[in-house]
Amino acid sequence: MEITLKPVGVIRTPFTETKGMPIQGRFDDNARGAAEILPQYREGLKDLDGFSHAFLIFYFDRSKEERLVGKPFLEQVPRGIFSIRSPHRPNHLGLSLVRITEVRDDALVFSGVDMLDGTPLLDIKPYISHVDSRENVKNGWIEKHFQSGDIASRVRL
Amino acid sequence: MEITLKPVGVIRTPFTETKGMPIQGRFDDNARGAAEILPQYREGLKDLDGFSHAFLIFYFDRSKEERLVGKPFLEQVPRGIFSIRSPHRPNHLGLSLVRITEVRDDALVFSGVDMLDGTPLLDIKPYISHVDSRENVKNGWIEKHFQSGDIASRVRL
Repeated sequence: MEITLKPVGVIRTPFTETKGMPIQGRFDDNARGAAEILPQYREGLKDLDGFSHAFLIFYFDRSKEERLVGKPFLEQVPRGIFSIRSPHRPNHLGLSLVRITEVRDDALVFSGVDMLDGTPLLDIKPYISHVDSRENVKNGWIEKHFQSGDIASRVRL
Repeated sequence: MEITLKPVGVIRTPFTETKGMPIQGRFDDNARGAAEILPQYREGLKDLDGFSHAFLIFYFDRSKEERLVGKPFLEQVPRGIFSIRSPHRPNHLGLSLVRITEVRDDALVFSGVDMLDGTPLLDIKPYISHVDSRENVKNGWIEKHFQSGDIASRVRL
């Protein structure tokens, strides 16, 4: 079974290479990105301006590798691909939660940029705190990096 | 530009039709689902057992409609497709946050089921509270349904 998708737009960001890019947009609220929507899909942006956050689902088009175990940026220990957010994964799908700063007729402008300029956009979904924000969360192998307090200095590629 | 994906597994759930299925898995913690992983991708499940929650990205294979404006389940007002979670969307990508109950060698077992049995699975990503849980969230058109307190009785299709 093959599934064929097409971009609904393109993500514009200040980053043309991974070097210096945040590993998660959450760690840099200053950089601005724009999800530019193709004309035939722009009507879908209606009502998004009432939301403060959204998920972007995109395609890691610059990754040519597909791994099942990868080394996360934060440590040297190889981890299963479904337990890390690496681009080098089956299907190369990216998921980022961004903060909406403006909804234009042709684009969603956001902070929380962790994608390369020109990344194909596949979907936008509203962030609904009542279903998407959870308590009593266990963060697996990554928790220790937040607890140690050194993550702030290690959040860029 | 076309993007070709392939399932990494299949999602097994108690729901063979949308009628009676929760609109968001968050609203029913009893039903169990299993994301069964194809043999060639199972190694990717390593380390996921340290996490309590995960995102599943899947393909709404039963939807044959692509709309830009849709009527959400909770109300009669048509809303832009990027502001609702409807399956009838460009690319038919689904995103659900589930609670992990068991990680087997061949499957992720979870509660928070809001997909049909047999749904093709495209990816699993770990939920990391430090980046995926946000405060000061505005929930747009959907907030009033949570505030009115009547959502508990209206969460099934």
